[in-house]
Amino acid sequence: MGNTFGQLFRVTTFGESHGGGVGVVIDGCPPRIALSDSDIQGELHRRRPGQSKITTQRKEPDRAEILSGLFEGQTLGTPIAILVRNEDARPEAYESMRETWRPSHADFTYEAKYGIRNWQGGGRASARETVGRVAAGAVARRVLATLFPKVEIVAYVMQVHEIAAWIDRRTVTANSVEQSIVRCPDENASAKMIELIEKTRAEGDSLGGTIECVARNVPIGLGEPVFDKLEADLARGMLSLPATKGFEIGSGFAATRMRGSEHNDPFEKREDRVGTATNFSGGIQGGISNGEEIYFRVAFKPTATIAREQRTITTGGQTTTLRARGRHDPCVLPRAVPMVEAMTALVLCDHALRQRAIDLARA
Amino acid sequence: MGNTFGQLFRVTTFGESHGGGVGVVIDGCPPRIALSDSDIQGELHRRRPGQSKITTQRKEPDRAEILSGLFEGQTLGTPIAILVRNEDARPEAYESMRETWRPSHADFTYEAKYGIRNWQGGGRASARETVGRVAAGAVARRVLATLFPKVEIVAYVMQVHEIAAWIDRRTVTANSVEQSIVRCPDENASAKMIELIEKTRAEGDSLGGTIECVARNVPIGLGEPVFDKLEADLARGMLSLPATKGFEIGSGFAATRMRGSEHNDPFEKREDRVGTATNFSGGIQGGISNGEEIYFRVAFKPTATIAREQRTITTGGQTTTLRARGRHDPCVLPRAVPMVEAMTALVLCDHALRQRAIDLARA
Amino acid sequence: MGNTFGQLFRVTTFGESHGGGVGVVIDGCPPRIALSDSDIQGELHRRRPGQSKITTQRKEPDRAEILSGLFEGQTLGTPIAILVRNEDARPEAYESMRETWRPSHADFTYEAKYGIRNWQGGGRASARETVGRVAAGAVARRVLATLFPKVEIVAYVMQVHEIAAWIDRRTVTANSVEQSIVRCPDENASAKMIELIEKTRAEGDSLGGTIECVARNVPIGLGEPVFDKLEADLARGMLSLPATKGFEIGSGFAATRMRGSEHNDPFEKREDRVGTATNFSGGIQGGISNGEEIYFRVAFKPTATIAREQRTITTGGQTTTLRARGRHDPCVLPRAVPMVEAMTALVLCDHALRQRAIDLARA
Amino acid sequence: MGNTFGQLFRVTTFGESHGGGVGVVIDGCPPRIALSDSDIQGELHRRRPGQSKITTQRKEPDRAEILSGLFEGQTLGTPIAILVRNEDARPEAYESMRETWRPSHADFTYEAKYGIRNWQGGGRASARETVGRVAAGAVARRVLATLFPKVEIVAYVMQVHEIAAWIDRRTVTANSVEQSIVRCPDENASAKMIELIEKTRAEGDSLGGTIECVARNVPIGLGEPVFDKLEADLARGMLSLPATKGFEIGSGFAATRMRGSEHNDPFEKREDRVGTATNFSGGIQGGISNGEEIYFRVAFKPTATIAREQRTITTGGQTTTLRARGRHDPCVLPRAVPMVEAMTALVLCDHALRQRAIDLARA
Repeated sequence: MGNTFGQLFRVTTFGESHGGGVGVVIDGCPPRIALSDSDIQGELHRRRPGQSKITTQRKEPDRAEILSGLFEGQTLGTPIAILVRNEDARPEAYESMRETWRPSHADFTYEAKYGIRNWQGGGRASARETVGRVAAGAVARRVLATLFPKVEIVAYVMQVHEIAAWIDRRTVTANSVEQSIVRCPDENASAKMIELIEKTRAEGDSLGGTIECVARNVPIGLGEPVFDKLEADLARGMLSLPATKGFEIGSGFAATRMRGSEHNDPFEKREDRVGTATNFSGGIQGGISNGEEIYFRVAFKPTATIAREQRTITTGGQTTTLRARGRHDPCVLPRAVPMVEAMTALVLCDHALRQRAIDLARA
Repeated sequence: MGNTFGQLFRVTTFGESHGGGVGVVIDGCPPRIALSDSDIQGELHRRRPGQSKITTQRKEPDRAEILSGLFEGQTLGTPIAILVRNEDARPEAYESMRETWRPSHADFTYEAKYGIRNWQGGGRASARETVGRVAAGAVARRVLATLFPKVEIVAYVMQVHEIAAWIDRRTVTANSVEQSIVRCPDENASAKMIELIEKTRAEGDSLGGTIECVARNVPIGLGEPVFDKLEADLARGMLSLPATKGFEIGSGFAATRMRGSEHNDPFEKREDRVGTATNFSGGIQGGISNGEEIYFRVAFKPTATIAREQRTITTGGQTTTLRARGRHDPCVLPRAVPMVEAMTALVLCDHALRQRAIDLARA
Repeated sequence: MGNTFGQLFRVTTFGESHGGGVGVVIDGCPPRIALSDSDIQGELHRRRPGQSKITTQRKEPDRAEILSGLFEGQTLGTPIAILVRNEDARPEAYESMRETWRPSHADFTYEAKYGIRNWQGGGRASARETVGRVAAGAVARRVLATLFPKVEIVAYVMQVHEIAAWIDRRTVTANSVEQSIVRCPDENASAKMIELIEKTRAEGDSLGGTIECVARNVPIGLGEPVFDKLEADLARGMLSLPATKGFEIGSGFAATRMRGSEHNDPFEKREDRVGTATNFSGGIQGGISNGEEIYFRVAFKPTATIAREQRTITTGGQTTTLRARGRHDPCVLPRAVPMVEAMTALVLCDHALRQRAIDLARA
Repeated sequence: MGNTFGQLFRVTTFGESHGGGVGVVIDGCPPRIALSDSDIQGELHRRRPGQSKITTQRKEPDRAEILSGLFEGQTLGTPIAILVRNEDARPEAYESMRETWRPSHADFTYEAKYGIRNWQGGGRASARETVGRVAAGAVARRVLATLFPKVEIVAYVMQVHEIAAWIDRRTVTANSVEQSIVRCPDENASAKMIELIEKTRAEGDSLGGTIECVARNVPIGLGEPVFDKLEADLARGMLSLPATKGFEIGSGFAATRMRGSEHNDPFEKREDRVGTATNFSGGIQGGISNGEEIYFRVAFKPTATIAREQRTITTGGQTTTLRARGRHDPCVLPRAVPMVEAMTALVLCDHALRQRAIDLARA
């Protein structure tokens, strides 16, 4: 009972990596939003396995079928169910998982919690689960575009292992991100990252890194203190993604080494609104968006599946070793970029609807 | 509509810093839990203003009245309402806030969102709001102690500005934390932190820092993938606290610079359970507790209220300067320790009840 | 964990009949709604014990204190906590309940469910719990009045035991209802009801009856199919009130004896909107309000507390007899009228906010 | 945003009558429940159109595909998604609905609420939507059977128009209900009902009626006062079904004509538990099950779709007449019996899990 996200724009995902398919039901999407298969397919392609030489070679077309909630190209206001069939599942590759706990995977905890698990793959703990999130995120983007045409959400890889990119957060574009198969818009760093990822894959190892996400032109007033502060919901959304280990917003952990006199963002008058001279707050103050850029970073650990021999134990408690076969990503970050954007869109869309409900001044 | 936390152990806080009082209603507390005023008062005292020379000097006795849900020293299974009156409010000290936006405070965003705000203090954005959380956390601890007598939750200050403490996470005790008024169990670092805080206050400035929290002997199996993963709910809880800018679990952001072969935690057989040789996972795998220590860190920014002149604008858009009067903490971390523990207790208690619901094998 | 009502206008009640007090926290009330103590007090007076010769003589002033969420006569958009102290509790009158199950009361089921109960009164099962609902309903009415100035909610007693009133649903006014201490606007029936209630009380017995409620000028479009249909939420709200046994909307149970050709409501053009020539639908079609009058009836059983000797058993399983002392209502209906109106206001207010969230055409 | 039912056993339905299909996602089903396609198919067959001469002749095989959440015949504890394709949709039969409001249907209110509707059928307002509920109800029954092997849920038609059946609630069996195509276990009444339904269909008209449902051996202690009382959730569940107009539990509306001395249920000692001599309470007291039979009745209006000419208006406001083509049920009650049982199973299953969560005494 933890597969629903959002209060008003409610997303419920389903499906294991091996089985009938994965998907999502979106309840609460406003009616009369123009929506097409290609809106969804475009985002799924960015998440798709096998999209480049540095991702897993599992071949999934990830074709989305919109089962309900749409009529003549517009949303009906009723639940939108989207299904993506699993096609290239190879359960036999997972035979060894049946009786062995893969280190730093969820095999053991799923078995311990539920007393059963689908050992023919990662089940719900597989990144394949995020298909439903990304599809729903595409719908959320359509709603946001209808409400606030200027909103932009752009995520990008800013660090892989020791390679840090230089990216100007204020000018980076979605297009520039997509130029790089690692989704790092710093050409120089991108090339180094690709090289390192390929080398690491050849060594049977894996890499972690950091994704930054910026949301521009978010209207002032989104976020519901005290528990559903905007950054709290973003943090929850990000930490619910597979392989994430950390979240920081605005100044983040660096704020811990600053003084108030340095960190405070002075207010200043803009042409059409109140702004801040600096933006250590990350576009959110007191849990509510202030109109400045919202930006945050998410830490991803190195992929747990590696092609090296590792020590572990069997389900029966015997010491053994394991070497992953199967296909996997040596570095999840390139494919995680659309996931981070999707969760951001879900949070912003949900909060936009929540704010509409109480903003009686509006109309 | 964002003042409730938890699915089964549901906590709804209320109250502004200036007004009738602050408090909480806990719905979903199991019946027949022994609970006394002192359980709650003890935690409130740790959060209380004026508790030491390095905190704000606002004098609030923070006496909690349990209004309902208790009978002859035991919980009834009905809502537990707890009220703490505001006593030492000094609205006149906030007169200047009426028409001026305090930098990096929530005055502006509350006004923009709601079209109204209680300018006689921080309102809901004040740390005073956390009284309800800490009171509820004390109740959650009692439930956890009943279900899992060995569970321990210990948070401590591990860094203030540039001063980092050396603390052995595996052995640190609640008692050792309470020996230090800054709640840093490294005596040497603690002394330096106190000195720095006093010096900074004298300079009219403020400091940030990092709190680490460890939860020991948490049963295996807590956490509800995919959105209500245990770390996702912890992240949300922490980022909903005032002044927080980041959250990282286990290896955290350091994981981004590691390889899978280094980061994976090998499983190994323990006497009574499956364990891991290392614990970069931070006690959670796939969103579910694995029986190892859960540990995470929370970044706090420097207090926004400072006694220095700052540039800002008035509500009418005029450039002006502001210098805080009022009483405030030069560094929120000492008082934030019980808040972090309270949110941790709330998350663990809620997930413990959620797991009971579906664990049919149990009985 | 069942003490919250509503999705966006969320009401959480607390408190037992004997203890510190009863009350409510309202989360999700829009900001800048004018609200005063007297708005709340007025409704509480209609619910108050001891208001007339035909109600219980328990003397509770039921003075409401608004603890939070209000500033200078307007709502802040933050949680509104309202507390009413218990004053005239006489726990000693309930001494006999300690070891005896009162027939058709909730003593036994609370004890069985929770393993504990506050035997010094009805606890949460007491009608005293509805203080919080009525206070919240008063706030909901203020929100509705702001959004839709013409909305009217009027409930009235239409039947006590065998005495049925003749009331014109389309013209009945709140004022006419309040003219009668039994809250039946048919003068003739009202007089008979009062007589019967007094006679029945003298006999140590009690009476049931039916309340009808009409909501006029409810905007078209409220209700969220398929589970949160407007009538489904009304039904839930009414059946959650103490002593209720049934709910019917529009034609209700009489519809079961009609043919489609009789029951269907022909659409017709009105000046400013689409209307229906008849209104067997009760103002709701497909779970959504259609602009016609919403009307429904609620069945109340005779009060369980009677001053006659009744057969029962002790908590130890011994057969015994019981005769209620304590003070009680011989017929709950007069005081239930404001409760029915309050639940109606809560449902309509919640759905009005929900509809605002998705109605993008509005602005 | 009203397509989810339940707090812990959470059911989200999706799908329109004309489109890709209808279905459900169940989140919160405990793991390791034995479940097969035939468990679900059996219930769907009872709901299926075209099952007998007195139902609509739409031919839908209603074959359920379990897309996720199942492994080797057992639930995984992850979301169970079930899809039923629409096959015999004939959108052309609904061409006339495009521009005409069908009386007492939801065409007008859906259009008014959402500004759009799928006019090629009833959309979400079609009884076809209940496929997802019935499929989920079948899963809920499996969970209940695992937790409480003796629980029985039996619904039956007790009245069609003026024909009332005589049925002994305490002994009626599911088998005896299924002997009759109208699902009335009184042979004599059943024959008359069938005759009346056929005659009425020939006349182009439709009929309403009443379904009674009894739940036996429900454990003591289910129900969460004060808003989620067991009868409140049952009422909500029933009133969310298409064509329902009323709900009454136990003595129901008849209670309004009784005195307390008649209506109160004396407690008495049973061999293994506390019982009541009479059961006017309907198995629920104070919102909590007391171990006696839970029984309630649901009123269904006559089907709105009739083959007679009716007065109505066009979407443009012109007066017109309408005569339904398409296929429809002259009386929904036979097919509504499994829907009532399904909603009952969903409510009981959800409350059983909720009670497990807080019942610490259990283990």
